[in-house]
Amino acid sequence: MAKDRLAKDIQFIIELDKMKSILRQTTLMDGSRRENDAEHSWHIAVMAMVLSEYANEKIDVCKVIKMLLVHDLVEIYAGDTFCYDKEANESKEERELKAADRLFGILDEDKGKELRALWEEFEEMKTNEAIFAAAMDRIQPLFCNYQSGGGTWKKFNITKEQVYKRTEPVKCASEELWEFVSNMIEDAVEKGYIVSNT
Amino acid sequence: MAKDRLAKDIQFIIELDKMKSILRQTTLMDGSRRENDAEHSWHIAVMAMVLSEYANEKIDVCKVIKMLLVHDLVEIYAGDTFCYDKEANESKEERELKAADRLFGILDEDKGKELRALWEEFEEMKTNEAIFAAAMDRIQPLFCNYQSGGGTWKKFNITKEQVYKRTEPVKCASEELWEFVSNMIEDAVEKGYIVSNT
Repeated sequence: MAKDRLAKDIQFIIELDKMKSILRQTTLMDGSRRENDAEHSWHIAVMAMVLSEYANEKIDVCKVIKMLLVHDLVEIYAGDTFCYDKEANESKEERELKAADRLFGILDEDKGKELRALWEEFEEMKTNEAIFAAAMDRIQPLFCNYQSGGGTWKKFNITKEQVYKRTEPVKCASEELWEFVSNMIEDAVEKGYIVSNT
Repeated sequence: MAKDRLAKDIQFIIELDKMKSILRQTTLMDGSRRENDAEHSWHIAVMAMVLSEYANEKIDVCKVIKMLLVHDLVEIYAGDTFCYDKEANESKEERELKAADRLFGILDEDKGKELRALWEEFEEMKTNEAIFAAAMDRIQPLFCNYQSGGGTWKKFNITKEQVYKRTEPVKCASEELWEFVSNMIEDAVEKGYIVSNT
């Protein structure tokens, strides 16, 4: 039984390798290529370590990190859904639920449930930890776009209104980070990286 | 002062993007390309979450995860040193110490020290957490090589003796994982992925 459990764990770990081939729309900060889900997940997990001191509310940073490490796993089967793609977002929930059943189902029930609960908490965005995790997930592509001279903002003609809506969780997560991020957005509009609404 | 601190944090986070361009010798499990440090770090951090129950000793899994997320950061400046490259390993320590000064020096002293301490603990491999973290770091490339039909073992004619020496920390970290890993190594020798010593 114990060996069977470990064999499932290993199968799961091997399956996770596919995260390195799930491409996001966002590019690396030097603009050289699109980044993948594994890289993105690593980056925001370290960001949580570095930025947790700015959280408005008391957070369990360990839980935030774990959440961020697994928050995109379902994309192994459901694919990455670009946040500004309205049509794709309509089918997102259904696709991701199916993917979660399949992926977490590889593991023994208790372990599958534990990891799935982290993903569900992230998706619901209600707890302090989930809100802070969401902020990390929203800030990182901002840096990629800003550093690469516009990135997906420019490529898809994203408006200031869209960017502000997308980054809303940052406001709830941290006053300091929100001030930094809103200044960056305004600067990106000025630089012509983001379409002004007016 | 607080703004200056955050500005340093952001500069550090932007610098970390370079991890996505530090290539390891190991390839993805499908053999399609070499993996990078960011992907590798993410993978072993999730592995720690999944496999922590098999640890021989009581471990703080949160610390293991944090350690794994930052254990390769110095390679941003020092580059990846292939574990079986004897010559490169002679200059490794000096190169990495310089890199650590430069990288962690971006941050305010207290934060730089905190992250550096995690890296140092990992490198020293003395605490239960560091030993378990090392095991994750040693097991993951094994999976890559095995799954891709030999990988760097085959490419560099690595011997069974070398592989066993490299995977020694797994023995200290977990009895169950060691049993699994040593069976995998023996199987890889039989399949001709690893050169037998005899």
